[in-house]
Amino acid sequence: MIRVGIVGATGYGGAELIRLLVGHPQVQIANLYSSSAEGDALEKTFPHVSGLGLPNLSPIDAKSMSADNDVVFLATPAGVSAGLSPQLMELGGTKVIDLSGDFRLESGEAYRSWYKREPAPAEWVQKAVYGLTEWNQEQVAGASLVANPGCYPTATLLALIPMMRSGWVKPGSWIVDAKSGVSGAGRGMSLGVHYSEINESIHAYKVSKHQHTPEIEQELAKQSGVESFVQFTPHLVPMTRGILVTAYGQLEADVSQQQIQEMLEATYADKPFVRVRPAGSHPHTKEVLGSNYCDIAVHVDERTGRVILLSVIDNMVKGAAGQAIQNMNVMFQLPEKAGLPLVPVFP
Amino acid sequence: MIRVGIVGATGYGGAELIRLLVGHPQVQIANLYSSSAEGDALEKTFPHVSGLGLPNLSPIDAKSMSADNDVVFLATPAGVSAGLSPQLMELGGTKVIDLSGDFRLESGEAYRSWYKREPAPAEWVQKAVYGLTEWNQEQVAGASLVANPGCYPTATLLALIPMMRSGWVKPGSWIVDAKSGVSGAGRGMSLGVHYSEINESIHAYKVSKHQHTPEIEQELAKQSGVESFVQFTPHLVPMTRGILVTAYGQLEADVSQQQIQEMLEATYADKPFVRVRPAGSHPHTKEVLGSNYCDIAVHVDERTGRVILLSVIDNMVKGAAGQAIQNMNVMFQLPEKAGLPLVPVFP
Amino acid sequence: MIRVGIVGATGYGGAELIRLLVGHPQVQIANLYSSSAEGDALEKTFPHVSGLGLPNLSPIDAKSMSADNDVVFLATPAGVSAGLSPQLMELGGTKVIDLSGDFRLESGEAYRSWYKREPAPAEWVQKAVYGLTEWNQEQVAGASLVANPGCYPTATLLALIPMMRSGWVKPGSWIVDAKSGVSGAGRGMSLGVHYSEINESIHAYKVSKHQHTPEIEQELAKQSGVESFVQFTPHLVPMTRGILVTAYGQLEADVSQQQIQEMLEATYADKPFVRVRPAGSHPHTKEVLGSNYCDIAVHVDERTGRVILLSVIDNMVKGAAGQAIQNMNVMFQLPEKAGLPLVPVFP
Amino acid sequence: MIRVGIVGATGYGGAELIRLLVGHPQVQIANLYSSSAEGDALEKTFPHVSGLGLPNLSPIDAKSMSADNDVVFLATPAGVSAGLSPQLMELGGTKVIDLSGDFRLESGEAYRSWYKREPAPAEWVQKAVYGLTEWNQEQVAGASLVANPGCYPTATLLALIPMMRSGWVKPGSWIVDAKSGVSGAGRGMSLGVHYSEINESIHAYKVSKHQHTPEIEQELAKQSGVESFVQFTPHLVPMTRGILVTAYGQLEADVSQQQIQEMLEATYADKPFVRVRPAGSHPHTKEVLGSNYCDIAVHVDERTGRVILLSVIDNMVKGAAGQAIQNMNVMFQLPEKAGLPLVPVFP
Repeated sequence: MIRVGIVGATGYGGAELIRLLVGHPQVQIANLYSSSAEGDALEKTFPHVSGLGLPNLSPIDAKSMSADNDVVFLATPAGVSAGLSPQLMELGGTKVIDLSGDFRLESGEAYRSWYKREPAPAEWVQKAVYGLTEWNQEQVAGASLVANPGCYPTATLLALIPMMRSGWVKPGSWIVDAKSGVSGAGRGMSLGVHYSEINESIHAYKVSKHQHTPEIEQELAKQSGVESFVQFTPHLVPMTRGILVTAYGQLEADVSQQQIQEMLEATYADKPFVRVRPAGSHPHTKEVLGSNYCDIAVHVDERTGRVILLSVIDNMVKGAAGQAIQNMNVMFQLPEKAGLPLVPVFP
Repeated sequence: MIRVGIVGATGYGGAELIRLLVGHPQVQIANLYSSSAEGDALEKTFPHVSGLGLPNLSPIDAKSMSADNDVVFLATPAGVSAGLSPQLMELGGTKVIDLSGDFRLESGEAYRSWYKREPAPAEWVQKAVYGLTEWNQEQVAGASLVANPGCYPTATLLALIPMMRSGWVKPGSWIVDAKSGVSGAGRGMSLGVHYSEINESIHAYKVSKHQHTPEIEQELAKQSGVESFVQFTPHLVPMTRGILVTAYGQLEADVSQQQIQEMLEATYADKPFVRVRPAGSHPHTKEVLGSNYCDIAVHVDERTGRVILLSVIDNMVKGAAGQAIQNMNVMFQLPEKAGLPLVPVFP
Repeated sequence: MIRVGIVGATGYGGAELIRLLVGHPQVQIANLYSSSAEGDALEKTFPHVSGLGLPNLSPIDAKSMSADNDVVFLATPAGVSAGLSPQLMELGGTKVIDLSGDFRLESGEAYRSWYKREPAPAEWVQKAVYGLTEWNQEQVAGASLVANPGCYPTATLLALIPMMRSGWVKPGSWIVDAKSGVSGAGRGMSLGVHYSEINESIHAYKVSKHQHTPEIEQELAKQSGVESFVQFTPHLVPMTRGILVTAYGQLEADVSQQQIQEMLEATYADKPFVRVRPAGSHPHTKEVLGSNYCDIAVHVDERTGRVILLSVIDNMVKGAAGQAIQNMNVMFQLPEKAGLPLVPVFP
Repeated sequence: MIRVGIVGATGYGGAELIRLLVGHPQVQIANLYSSSAEGDALEKTFPHVSGLGLPNLSPIDAKSMSADNDVVFLATPAGVSAGLSPQLMELGGTKVIDLSGDFRLESGEAYRSWYKREPAPAEWVQKAVYGLTEWNQEQVAGASLVANPGCYPTATLLALIPMMRSGWVKPGSWIVDAKSGVSGAGRGMSLGVHYSEINESIHAYKVSKHQHTPEIEQELAKQSGVESFVQFTPHLVPMTRGILVTAYGQLEADVSQQQIQEMLEATYADKPFVRVRPAGSHPHTKEVLGSNYCDIAVHVDERTGRVILLSVIDNMVKGAAGQAIQNMNVMFQLPEKAGLPLVPVFP
């Protein structure tokens, strides 16, 4: 059994890792870490895990963490992993899968500019592997430190990478209009997650300023060989889970909806967690809720010469904990689907 | 007192007209019409109007309708007004404000192609005035037959028309990503409005095929003098009321966010129902819920050279019944704001 | 014009008072007070009131408050009014309508025990009139200080008072199972109003310990002459507005559903804001949303010998700001319905 | 591998059975049956199951059903199982677990009176075992035909049975105020599940007339030896999944909250799916969402002499498909928890 440690167990990312790992046949949840509630049983924070026999919360201590786990998941706010992960790497003994954004951006300057804080040490940023499993499986398999992708970049990149590699879409033309449930904002309190403000309402936020923008641009460039801007706009939707990305690209080639469909199907034929839905369909976020799927549908508007891609994920699963476990499976040579639920919770 | 008749009183559009008109100081709700429940008290269908002393439901009959009302609102499914409005016009005696799409498209061919049904008689389509009050106030004042704008076109056009008139945005570059509450689908039953399917989920629908697309293009061309395609995508959001339009345009001129802000403020300075919000803000649909406002905010992304406009309305009010009453006020030389609530229902 | 001041303008209660008072024909919103944001425009806190020309926020100062207003509404947290209202009363010059619980309980000991804080001065508690308009209209008309009822007591008492006065129900048998939207918890932040925790979930809270319990018992006793316990349980429902009370009483008399129906209809025949719905019906909270109505329906279960009353209000309107304005209308000899919307926002 | 057949695969009950059974290690989903869509792939109805390799939909035919399955789940509307299950029983070869109400009521007259239709043959009703697993485990183990409990009775009985067996509560005093999400109403269309009607609203329904009332009374009597009425009121809450039961009983004995707590903990000590939460806590339905748990909390109000029990389940899992699989596990001597998720989906 692989001994797993989870840092940030009292947050939503931690809770979701626990949900999935409890059912994982090759894993033992060995340690839960929290800076805020050490010594406590987790069920004081999260009654839904009552009766599971989980370990009590331990304080964050790099030395014991590296000794007591085969892999540590960091489900922590920006900045924590930048300090902790290098310590764990230098101590050795455990692999690290970081769910925060601290090791995703290769450029320290970009991190500073978009995250408004100091980046992690460049040496470790370079060694980290970007864990978009479907596109980096080989590197992930050999990684000690995985930067797990952000929720928006996951839904966006799985749809855009094959399109950009095809050469059919004009670079710089992508407009990514993304819609997310509230759980992505975490368990911290703010007026932005107050029920009475969010319910029965929708709004955009951080227009042209969201820190997932450079992550999308970086990985799109790496996978396609073409650098370009992506216009990215997130919205907050009155629901708890789910992301829908509606992405618009200007077609440069004379290519039909059916050709794109076939290209996407071929691209993801052997990827168990990407489902290319029938051309012209409209995936609902609920159709992947609770699961690790990313469902993608393609539309071509012949009138305007644009391709419109629809991509849905559960932000807590494929957008966070599920993909992290998928990466763990790859790192430990386990079956890619181990421990990951195969049927969404519907309705 | 103006005698008002409402056709389609058992639908959501009819209910919203009643809500607003009951409080209108110069109006008497003289007649309610319904094809499905004639003779009944409306409170059998809508208990929320109990005790208001409304007239019972009458059958739809052009002759008595033209005799018994000064103005008739048609809140009816596509196709009804195409037959009924010409009869009422020919009988004379009453003005007509049509909330359906039957008289909005000048081209019968476009109507046939997007609505998949036969258009209204061309003669009356030509005489109808498109009731986007802020831009057609003079024509509305003299109209007998007003085609009240669709909900999506209202939110879209109020944001896009001034931009297109400015000449700052590249024609054909507009991408309009719209998000709507469920009430826009009406009270009819379908899996598409089933609570368990819609709650905790978001999805796009009718990608590249929504019948409000040609309406947007037609009016944008008329007001700006430039014909061009608009990429329009509607989404269904788990909420009852509200539309948010996120519109992306490619800037051709070297224009700042502040210049666009000032242009918008100047454009709508004397329009009581358009509120240009501070540059860079993010309006929530809930901030206009229950009111006739359209709130607009502008963002310029200097990195990508795009302008992003955010526009929110309550689809039942400014997107339907409220704008219809605003048009009635103009047609009958009443104060434009008469009977229209000035403060949104928040939270 | 009556000059109105609102204390707590940056909370939900304040916002709702503004919504309703802006449309009130005999009222001028003269002053808005806030301890937290003085000098600011309210639209910095509440963008939905942009463009209304409201006065800026003033600091809380009893002297100027008493001089500058004919009536002051206190929409403030527990404890504020206990200090401020006596000052205003002693200065004279303005009437006070207190939306908090500070002057509702006649027994200081009960206040101390249920609210866990010191009660207001007994002298002023005695002079305050409990503003359940339908049952205390005469006293309200002569009052200088009105204790506006709590949201749960309003929905409960309007259903229970006539039943207890009838003598048909066994004292002490009432079980009041109440369900509320989240806005009742105010705008302050806590995990208890976090969207991701509340959405798609329901739970009871403060079972047997809610501070509205003694308020219900006190007024029920005063109006019926019979002292008894009421079992009161509140629940939090994933919606913003609305309260549904389901009240169970053991019938002692051999009385039919129809007899109770007639008694209720007679009781409220001339009360414009209580609608007795047809016997056996099931009111939805949405059928009163945004309005000042309390809709009541009666069921008699002959099998078990119990009466079940269903009572719905909008907690922000009849449960707070609307009833406060109703009381103001009575205090200033205005029409009882002035400024209060007559048609709920549906859907 | 146990060969499982599911009748009603295009409904929500069927979908939930599939979700859980796909992950069951000892089960093969051998056949899916539907009267409405035979021959089709299920993903045409439910895109969320795309790519699972499920069998296509077969027509309902008793002969092949009995030959091709070891157990058949009936997730069908009232009346279907009454006809089909006796055929399957007589053919032999397969066990049946009926999720509908057709075999739950022992009295044909009661069925006729509450369900308004003809009961199943008395012979088979007598042979059916009521599958409240925690209380009937032995009988379930030997059963060929299991009547799987209703969602409301499950949440209610697990809380009430131990209380009634204790003799501490006055018979006939139980008031069960239940709150349910919308999925319990199934996938059929009606105004009662229309999003715009249900969202942001709560209401009671079928007051004193719900068909789960006699089921609760029957089983409570059987398990406690005392016949008595239960006052049962269901409510529809704007959420998809979850039931909360708030049950009020009059204490006859001088018993403390702590004593009841200990009794409940002892009763369910070895039952993996009942979690007795700390005394005085307030379980949220979301804390069991997606799981087979029933979480119960006890409150004693010493002021009124009542016990208040709070009981939460996911109506689709412990209230339907999950308990059905728990029964299957017992019938086939599998571990009771096999295939049932152990961690709720939170948030």
